[in-house]
Amino acid sequence: MPELRKDPVTDRWVIIATERARRPGDFARESLPEKPSGRYCPFCPGHESKTPPEVLAYREGSGRNQPGWSLRVVPNKFPVLEIEGELEREGDGLFDRMQGIGAHEVVIETPDHALSITELSDHAIEKVLWAFRDRVCDLKNDRRLRYVLLFKNQGEAAGATLEHTHSQLIALPVVPKRVQEEIESAERYFDFKERCVFCDLIRQEIRAGARVVTETDHFVVIAPYASRFPFETWILPRHHRSHFEDADAHQLKNLAWVLKSTLKKLEKVLERPPYNLIVHTGPLQEAANDHYHWHIEIIPKLTRVAGFEWGTGFYINPTPPEEAAKFLRDAGLG
Amino acid sequence: MPELRKDPVTDRWVIIATERARRPGDFARESLPEKPSGRYCPFCPGHESKTPPEVLAYREGSGRNQPGWSLRVVPNKFPVLEIEGELEREGDGLFDRMQGIGAHEVVIETPDHALSITELSDHAIEKVLWAFRDRVCDLKNDRRLRYVLLFKNQGEAAGATLEHTHSQLIALPVVPKRVQEEIESAERYFDFKERCVFCDLIRQEIRAGARVVTETDHFVVIAPYASRFPFETWILPRHHRSHFEDADAHQLKNLAWVLKSTLKKLEKVLERPPYNLIVHTGPLQEAANDHYHWHIEIIPKLTRVAGFEWGTGFYINPTPPEEAAKFLRDAGLG
Repeated sequence: MPELRKDPVTDRWVIIATERARRPGDFARESLPEKPSGRYCPFCPGHESKTPPEVLAYREGSGRNQPGWSLRVVPNKFPVLEIEGELEREGDGLFDRMQGIGAHEVVIETPDHALSITELSDHAIEKVLWAFRDRVCDLKNDRRLRYVLLFKNQGEAAGATLEHTHSQLIALPVVPKRVQEEIESAERYFDFKERCVFCDLIRQEIRAGARVVTETDHFVVIAPYASRFPFETWILPRHHRSHFEDADAHQLKNLAWVLKSTLKKLEKVLERPPYNLIVHTGPLQEAANDHYHWHIEIIPKLTRVAGFEWGTGFYINPTPPEEAAKFLRDAGLG
Repeated sequence: MPELRKDPVTDRWVIIATERARRPGDFARESLPEKPSGRYCPFCPGHESKTPPEVLAYREGSGRNQPGWSLRVVPNKFPVLEIEGELEREGDGLFDRMQGIGAHEVVIETPDHALSITELSDHAIEKVLWAFRDRVCDLKNDRRLRYVLLFKNQGEAAGATLEHTHSQLIALPVVPKRVQEEIESAERYFDFKERCVFCDLIRQEIRAGARVVTETDHFVVIAPYASRFPFETWILPRHHRSHFEDADAHQLKNLAWVLKSTLKKLEKVLERPPYNLIVHTGPLQEAANDHYHWHIEIIPKLTRVAGFEWGTGFYINPTPPEEAAKFLRDAGLG
């Protein structure tokens, strides 16, 4: 019998269609190429002039926009939002609009074109997390910006257009609707229970165990109860904090290891799937709070999503999260 | 300069990324095959026993589950929900679940495997609309069911798995979150203005003209102001009604023509794109109301949607709806 499950944070119902149960090998989908294509790459060292000037780089000795960096953050050459200008909010009858003010940046995670994120050292991944943090802290100073989306699209099917491993950030003058909704829902739960819904969720998942993939001192990795997609995976910090940028050095160091091992497990079980990784965090201009809890959501792209799912918020997931968690838990990393 | 626009119904902000403006030919995507593959098809006449027994058919003379029908509705052979059983709602700590009770049916739109929906006669399309209506009216009698999703996935990239032209319905024991949200938002607008937000929208769009594709006595076809996707197209009835199934015979007759001409325009401009079509209507067990307004949304699948759009409700659309509407308006149907 299929089962309907409700996500306790967003109140989203999902169908876990057990009658169609799908194991990792049942998904017909693109695997990421094992070797780089050798095409010309604007993110490689020596091609610094092919990107807009860097806004942040970690390097020893060398000059700005010169080779010698270990990580580099540059504005996107084709930004979806622009940093210069005024918001100019205005109405037109029923409609509301504003200028597309914001930032769109690329985090080039390594100078080495041949490496994927799971081939980077733990230390290099930690630097990526520090770059996220540094950029968020800097963008926070621009009072026009209300939210920073930190994300990584891995593989063409997940929206990546360049193969050199990178993440992105988009800073927005509004809080996206789904983010706002998640935060408001967590706030309602807090008003009712005087506890953070994510903290409760973490305790319950650790006690139950069936959906836990990995557990460390600082993080727990789970297949969420009402997973929208097969092998949807969340990384939750055990210590309550509303904003990612408030994570401390111990946590970021541990997160680097947790993130790498989680992505390696997904790669192993699903044969290098395309995926999207999104950091869910509190709004930029809001102080730390007791009700929201930052975390990372990873969505492998295994199924074709019918467009009506956007229109209705209604998801059909053929893989029960308990099975997904078991596959990931059992994936030895050799 | 890119522009941020807010949808007046859902309050969803969208980036219209004009700097990346995309014309119809710029999208690299699958076109639908011009000719059928000739593979064995369970929806063709003579294969009636390959589907579960029909729940509705339009035919003259011939017996149930025999050839001779012009349209046939059957339960999906691999349903995501099942009609037999009890809901058995229950909690498990934070979590809520219920049995996957509901209906999942297929509307086989024509016996002729070689025809696509735009090659059907207006009369045949009208029958499809009547079948939608007849099934909704029947399912309404099952008090466990709260919502019927009527939709069509055209092309593999949009989720269709069989090429014989068909639509689907899924009847659910809950109202999907996005639908509920749209309805509540319309209700808030009504409380504030004592007018339907869709009626206001229709008046404003007709007056402005720039986003109108087609206008008849009964319907208006528009590219919505805050389109999430390139060439997103809505068909709105001019006469206020909350529920699709309350549309009258004149409206369904006119809708058949409007739907066919709209799909033909999309086919012509975008070279037979895959698409999803979704009927947005009021909940099954609720009476007609003054605040919600049924309509059809059509989403061509032209861009790869990065998964973070599901997580954030944040969309980047490279084609301004004013341009999309102009292309569709200018598409002569010869």
